[in-house]
Order: sequence, then structure tokens, then C-alpha cells
Amino acid sequence: MASQKIGECDYVLLCLDTRRTYMLKVETGKTFHTHKGYVKLDELIGKEFGVAFQSSLGIVFTALKPTLEDYIMKSSRKTQITYPKDIALIVMFSGIGSGSRVVESGTGTGALTTALAHYVKPEGRVYTYELREEFQKNAEKNLKRTNLLDYVELKSGDVTAGIEEREVDAVVLDLAVPWLVVPHAYEALKPSGTIVSFSPTIDQVVKTVEALQENNFVFIETIECMMRAMQVARGKTRPHTMMTGHTGYITHARKAVKTRQETPEKPA
Amino acid sequence: MASQKIGECDYVLLCLDTRRTYMLKVETGKTFHTHKGYVKLDELIGKEFGVAFQSSLGIVFTALKPTLEDYIMKSSRKTQITYPKDIALIVMFSGIGSGSRVVESGTGTGALTTALAHYVKPEGRVYTYELREEFQKNAEKNLKRTNLLDYVELKSGDVTAGIEEREVDAVVLDLAVPWLVVPHAYEALKPSGTIVSFSPTIDQVVKTVEALQENNFVFIETIECMMRAMQVARGKTRPHTMMTGHTGYITHARKAVKTRQETPEKPA
Amino acid sequence: MASQKIGECDYVLLCLDTRRTYMLKVETGKTFHTHKGYVKLDELIGKEFGVAFQSSLGIVFTALKPTLEDYIMKSSRKTQITYPKDIALIVMFSGIGSGSRVVESGTGTGALTTALAHYVKPEGRVYTYELREEFQKNAEKNLKRTNLLDYVELKSGDVTAGIEEREVDAVVLDLAVPWLVVPHAYEALKPSGTIVSFSPTIDQVVKTVEALQENNFVFIETIECMMRAMQVARGKTRPHTMMTGHTGYITHARKAVKTRQETPEKPA
Amino acid sequence: MASQKIGECDYVLLCLDTRRTYMLKVETGKTFHTHKGYVKLDELIGKEFGVAFQSSLGIVFTALKPTLEDYIMKSSRKTQITYPKDIALIVMFSGIGSGSRVVESGTGTGALTTALAHYVKPEGRVYTYELREEFQKNAEKNLKRTNLLDYVELKSGDVTAGIEEREVDAVVLDLAVPWLVVPHAYEALKPSGTIVSFSPTIDQVVKTVEALQENNFVFIETIECMMRAMQVARGKTRPHTMMTGHTGYITHARKAVKTRQETPEKPA
Repeated sequence: MASQKIGECDYVLLCLDTRRTYMLKVETGKTFHTHKGYVKLDELIGKEFGVAFQSSLGIVFTALKPTLEDYIMKSSRKTQITYPKDIALIVMFSGIGSGSRVVESGTGTGALTTALAHYVKPEGRVYTYELREEFQKNAEKNLKRTNLLDYVELKSGDVTAGIEEREVDAVVLDLAVPWLVVPHAYEALKPSGTIVSFSPTIDQVVKTVEALQENNFVFIETIECMMRAMQVARGKTRPHTMMTGHTGYITHARKAVKTRQETPEKPA
Repeated sequence: MASQKIGECDYVLLCLDTRRTYMLKVETGKTFHTHKGYVKLDELIGKEFGVAFQSSLGIVFTALKPTLEDYIMKSSRKTQITYPKDIALIVMFSGIGSGSRVVESGTGTGALTTALAHYVKPEGRVYTYELREEFQKNAEKNLKRTNLLDYVELKSGDVTAGIEEREVDAVVLDLAVPWLVVPHAYEALKPSGTIVSFSPTIDQVVKTVEALQENNFVFIETIECMMRAMQVARGKTRPHTMMTGHTGYITHARKAVKTRQETPEKPA
Repeated sequence: MASQKIGECDYVLLCLDTRRTYMLKVETGKTFHTHKGYVKLDELIGKEFGVAFQSSLGIVFTALKPTLEDYIMKSSRKTQITYPKDIALIVMFSGIGSGSRVVESGTGTGALTTALAHYVKPEGRVYTYELREEFQKNAEKNLKRTNLLDYVELKSGDVTAGIEEREVDAVVLDLAVPWLVVPHAYEALKPSGTIVSFSPTIDQVVKTVEALQENNFVFIETIECMMRAMQVARGKTRPHTMMTGHTGYITHARKAVKTRQETPEKPA
Repeated sequence: MASQKIGECDYVLLCLDTRRTYMLKVETGKTFHTHKGYVKLDELIGKEFGVAFQSSLGIVFTALKPTLEDYIMKSSRKTQITYPKDIALIVMFSGIGSGSRVVESGTGTGALTTALAHYVKPEGRVYTYELREEFQKNAEKNLKRTNLLDYVELKSGDVTAGIEEREVDAVVLDLAVPWLVVPHAYEALKPSGTIVSFSPTIDQVVKTVEALQENNFVFIETIECMMRAMQVARGKTRPHTMMTGHTGYITHARKAVKTRQETPEKPA
């Protein structure tokens, strides 16, 4: 792992408490102002990540080294981010690991791209397609911040017209019309490779599952994941009042090799 | 990635449909019997993963290359496995990736160990502690099957008495008394390192959160994740009737470096 | 309320513990056998409801007076029952109370009919339609057991062809094609009256909501309710592992009086 | 049921769409202003409930007759209201119906009191205890609005010191220390009567369940209910993004009659 000393241009996650955290770039002469006093960021240079220190008002902050989840949650956004809970499951269902080659579309904020790159590095590669230039530029900025840009190829093509890569391990879809990409994903994937699609609506799910069934994918499953935070304190423990009730459904499947006498997958 | 041709001694996931899959080792002369006819496994040797083929009764099976999730779901069990949904979130919260060094306890079935090894390989390492020899042997078998044993050190020590490693990136706990391990996890972790604990009961969560607060951990959060599968078919789409309502709560936090004038983390 | 003494022909709920309860009719000479010994039911006659007593093996049972929920859970079934959690919400959304007149279709097991009758008695009336004679007979048996048959009119007509009643307070639907009944429900209802529909699939919900929008219903809402039981014991409290993940969606709306210049209800 | 013509001093629920509804008292000379134009309320007098009419800007509103749920949702609040989903289940578990006698504590906003009165009228009675005079006055106002005050006795006593009523059908608790009321509820209840307790925290649940076990209650169960609204529109159907993740746990049980040789209820 990289050195744990905070250096010029490193990102730190300033943590006041669980609900108040700030992602900042450490730069000489930069001051960060909060309602709990100000913090001189260059005083952090040379300290180790994890150091606790005081603001001008004597309030203790901790300067954490950002994790993948922190980078996801603090992505600069031009559109809705994919949530860590969904990203974690998409990564698991995709089966990827260090060395995998994966196609993604669309790039969006780059939050999911960041996670894919994090898990396939250093030998793997993420090929991510995005049509809107403004989104691509923003995603590039987010990837640079995490030092993961080297593992990513940002592409501008239209995946509903085709995917250029071949023999990839996984195809990950988070776009409005995943069913139109399914035949191209089949061409791009290795035999037995995985496809994972994230969609907010039921209609998208039904069309995608039908496209998977028609294109010789098997082991098709759709799930949704509800995450609820707990308020933990002796004698007062309870789930939080508000939660995100829905982000989207995750559908995943595997590429089977076409044979002459095939039986279609029955609906799950 | 490894070659996609099925070889002698490779594991395959025979897939009849989404609900009926079988993890098998390919061996010369071995036959697998199902109520849909038998399958001669050595006929798969030399075929590519993903191949569809027929049983003796003409039913089509697909021979998939097992993914991490398949290995987790098909672990040989001496105890309760950790579920893929929880493993996915534990991995995300731990912040680990290729090259990370992580301590785990207890080893249990080795399902979580398998996932940790999968994500830290090839340069990283998992140090996993288990007191019950029978569990350790079973976990070793599961890890061998996935070719991940090289990245794992199976240890027999009692983590409530101490952890030998130092400067690790993450500590992952799935045992009955996580709160007793928290002070040792603090010693083992790099500054800013992550701790993640999985527990079925509220009481374990409260004690663990208190131990984290007392031991200078910050950014403490507890969540639970409910996953529900969908039955997808045009005109008949609906969530499945039965679901797993609870597996456990996941608590995660970060190591702060002790200072003289500290303020305790407020309960989340 | 009725006398609390147990009489010949009364129903009792024999309760061994929370998971083992038995609905029985008290009859002279009748014996009830369990793996915890046998119970002579006529010994209960003249005792008060709530009495604890011993089986032949000295195990303590309690003879409870069945509540509405007990009658629902112990309905004799020819088809899927509606769950108490859903019945409770259907009743709430229907707005009914003592004196209300309500149309129901289909009768099914009569579980929902039982609840509707319970809440509209003694002056109100439930008009319940069922095409399958076998279901109607079974429902009649369930209603007799609860002494609620006097408040119910069991009807055999086809509600997709029309509803005979007029100026009813509520229409409650639990059948395969609720959208076909919506125009007839409009005719049957008082102005401002409520319609509540229970359906397992998304497709049924979409068609029903569209029919409501087209037929001058307003204040349209669809919800689902997930109920999870807790395992409560000091130091070991946690949600139960298994839960019912889905029963159905509940859609409810209100009859608006048609005007010449109307604006359609926007989708919720 | 009461006449459906709108009269002076009647309450109406003005409904613009599902998300924008307003509870108003119809009074001569009163005008209601919205961002969609103003509405002269006295023009509604003599019209039937359910009538659609236009605001000064030509926008269509519907004047609905408020249901129990509307009154609950639009309660004047000095404290947190109990949600309709929880009230519906509390009523179901309590087993009450027309004619029942029920004790409640605390009165709070009177939302639950309103529901209890609605279901026990006209012959039943709700005895509701509240220590804070300000809450009691507010609850009285809410009950007057629904014409249910005749079925309610507002009391100021401290239920942790005792309950005056005897032989009641149900005791319903929504206060901070329900376990202190359990012995008094036992005294107040008929044999086989029901107790239902609503609490936000796990700790309250554990203490209440223990008190029920120690005080000869049986058939003890604790559940929580999560309700999620759907956004229904052809091709775009999905659950809403935000939901209330937690309101409280509902514990219910039944009074058994003490015997000499009793066996304690095992934890559920």
C-alpha cells in the first residue's frame, strides 16, 4: 500500500463525526472553514493519515485516508451516483477481481467506474462508454482524484450500436435502455462471462430479463437491496427514522455458449 | 485471467436453471446423476466454460466457470456462512483491494476468507484466525478449491488475547464477542485503517460500538442490508414471497491516532 | 362484549407458546391430542377464557378467547388467505367503521370478509361476491365460526359484469382482474367513497391505477407493507431470520363526482 | 352513515392531487388560498362530498369527506403522531370492535385515540390517560373535529401508578416506559384480554417483553412494519426513493389467568 504520510496534493477525509465529513485536497496555504473553526491544511503535511488535530476553536477533527467508499460518496456529480450498497453487489455479481477486463456503460459520475478500476487494478482494465461529453469530463476528474485513471479507458461510443472489446470478463450496465445492449454484451463477453445491469424501474427489468433470455444468457436473477442504518446507543438503540427506500434493481446473468438444441431459461 | 478451457480437476457450476445449480469437480470417469438424467463429466474436458450440453435425457445444462459468489454459496459448511450480500458490503466498507493486508476472525466456513483473498490477490495477504480445528480444516478445503490458499495464512490463535500482525489495512470480525477484539484490532491496524464487524444481535452491536468509541475509532456506522429477489415475467412480475429477513448487522469504523486532547465520537 | 365464560360449542385458542396455538371447538366428550399430552375439552366448560390448565402430561396450556386476528390466521383455506397485516391496512384505507356498508370481491377464504364484518357490525353490512361455489361454502363455514354471518350477504354474481349495490361506503377488491371492476365500483360507491384493491403483481397494480384514473377516482396511492418479527430475549434480541418478503400491493383511491371540466389525476 | 351533503362547520379534505391535500373547516365567508388560486368554502355548502370544483384560477379540486386515515394524518400535533400503518396493526392486534372497552396511555396527539374511538363506537368506550395538560387539550381538539369525543374519556392520571378501569377488553400503550404499566394492565384487563405496546427502541421492547413474561401474559409477539409507497405509471413503475425506515416496534400479548402450577412463556 502507498505511504501513510499525508503529502501535498493528497486527498484527506476530514471527519468531525459520522455525519459530518469533508473530502479535501491538501495544498500549501489552503485553509478550510467550518462552523467549528478553521483548519490550516498545510499543517497536515508530513503527519500520518488518521491523525486527530484541533481546529482554531479547539474542536477535534480526524484526517482519514479516503477509502473507495469515501471516494464514491464524495464524487463530484453531474447525475445520480450509484450507491455503495449497489456498487458492492454489482462488483460481487460481476465476479471481477485483480486482472479482470470489464466493459461499463454509461460512465455517469464515474462512481461505479472508480469501484471497478479499484478491484481490477493493476493488471486489469475498465472500458467505460459515455455519450455525454460533460459527464465524461466530470468522471475523468473523479478518477484522477483516486489515482485510478491508469486502469480506465474512457470511451465515447454508443453501446446500443455495439461494443468494440472482445473476450471481456464482465459487462456492467447502468443506462436507460440496457436491453438494447444485451446482444452486444453477448458478443463482447467470454463464454461463461457475467453481465450485471442496474435499473430503477420494473419495466426496464422486465425488458432486460427478456433480452437476456432471448440472447442465450442463463442463471438470470434480479434482486433489490434495502439498506437501513441503525442509531446505536445503550438503552436507545433503534433503526434510523429515514431511509432510502429504493435506488434500483440489479439483474445479473451468465453467457452460455450457443448450441443447436437449446432450451430457453425459464423465468426465475 | 486463467484459460477458459475446462480441464481435469477444474470446478464447474452445472446450471439447469436459476434455482438448480451444482458445483462439481471434473474428473475422468466421473458421472453426475440428476432427476433430469446423468452427465459424464469427462466429456466436458477440453470444452470451453459456458458450454451448453445435454444430459442422457436430452435436458440442456450449462457448465459455467464458478465466480466468487458461486464459491461462497457452494461452500462446504460446518457453520453458518456469511451471505454474499453481507460479504459484498464488508469488502466495500473494509476499503481493501489488490495488495491489501487484512486480518480476519473467525475463519468459520472460509466463505468471507475466500472473498477477502479474492480481492487482495496477488500481492496482498489475509491472516485469518480460528480456534476450532475442524472449522479451519473445512475452510482450508474451501480455499483450495478456489485456488486462493496461497494468499491466506490460516492461524489458530485466540484473537481476544491479541493479534500478531501490525500495520494491516483492515480487520474484519465475524465472531461472537467482537468487542473483546476491538483493542487488539486497534494495535494491529495502520492509522486510518478500517475495522468491520458482522453480528446477528443488537446486543453485540451495542457492545462493539461502545468498544470502538472507547478505543479511539471514529466514523462509526452500523447498517443492515435486506435483499429481496424478484420474480420477473411479463405481466406477472412481483417480489418473491419468501426472503431472508435478517442475517446480521454490519458495523464499521476507522482508526484515529490518539491525541492528548481528544473529544469522543458521539453516537451515530 | 359477550360473556367470558367458556361454553359448549365456543371456539378457544389453545396456546402452548407463541408458535404453537390451536383453534378448537369445545364439545362434550371431545379430547385434543398433542405431543405434550392430551386435553379434555369439556373440562373447560364453565371456566373463564384465559384460564391456564394442564394437559395429561402436566404441560400448561392457556385457553384464549379467539380475536379477529386468530380467526383470520386459523381460517379454513381453499385458497391463499389475505394476511392480517394487509387486512389491517385495507380496513384502515377503506375508512369503514360500525354501520358502514361495504362491497367485497372475491370472498376467497372469507378472512377479509370476517374482518370487514367485524368492523361494520352491528348495523353495517358486507356484500361479498364469489363465483366459485366451493370457496363460498368454505367462507360461510369460517364466518359461522366467528358469529359474523348475520352481517354478511354471500353473493354469487360476477362483479366484472356489475355490482348490484348502490351508495356503499367502500368497495374492497382482492381478485385477479380488479381493473375490470373499477367502473362498476364507481357506480356502486357513494360520492367520496373509498376503493381498496389488493394485488400480488406489478402489472395488476398498473392496470388498476390506470382504470382508477380513467374512472374519475382521485387521491390514488399504492403501497406495500413488509412485516418482520423480532426474537426478543435480553442479550440475544434480533429480527427473525425468515420473513414473508411479499404478499401484495394495496392500492386505494376515492370517488370524485364527475364534472364537465375535469383535470385528470397525475400519477403519484 | 351520516348524510353526504357538505354542511356549515363540516370538515372537508380538499384534494388537488395525491401529494397535496388540505383539511379545512367549512365556514361561511371563509376563503382558502393556494398557489393554484383561491377557493370560497361556503360555495361548497349543500354540495355533496366528493364534488369536483374549480379554484379562481380554474384548477380542479375535489372536496372529499375525511376518512379516519385523513383525520390521523392531519392531526394537530404537539408530539410525534402514530402512523396509520402502525395504528392499523395496533387495532388489529388489540382485537377491539364495536362495543369494546379499551384503556390507552398516553393520549399524545390523540391520533391513536381517534382510531380506537372510531372502531369501538357507538357502545364502546376509550379511557385515555395523559399527564401533560397541553397534549390533552390538543387531543381533545382533534377528537372534537372527528365527532368522536362522546366515546372517549380523557383522564389525567399516571398509569405507572395504576389504572382505574377493570374488565377492559384491551390496553394500548404508547409511552416511554410501557414495562412499568404492564402489572397495572394485567389488573385492568379481562382474562384473555389483549395488551398492545408501541415503542421506538429495542431496549423498551426487551423490558416490555420481560415484564409481560413476569406478569402472566402469554402469546407474546413483537413485530415491525415497513411501508413503502410505489410510483405507478406505465413503463415507469418503481418504489419511491424515500421511505420512513422506522417508526417503532409493536409488541402484543394476551392475559392468562394465574394458576398455581404455571410454566413461564419461553421467549419467542
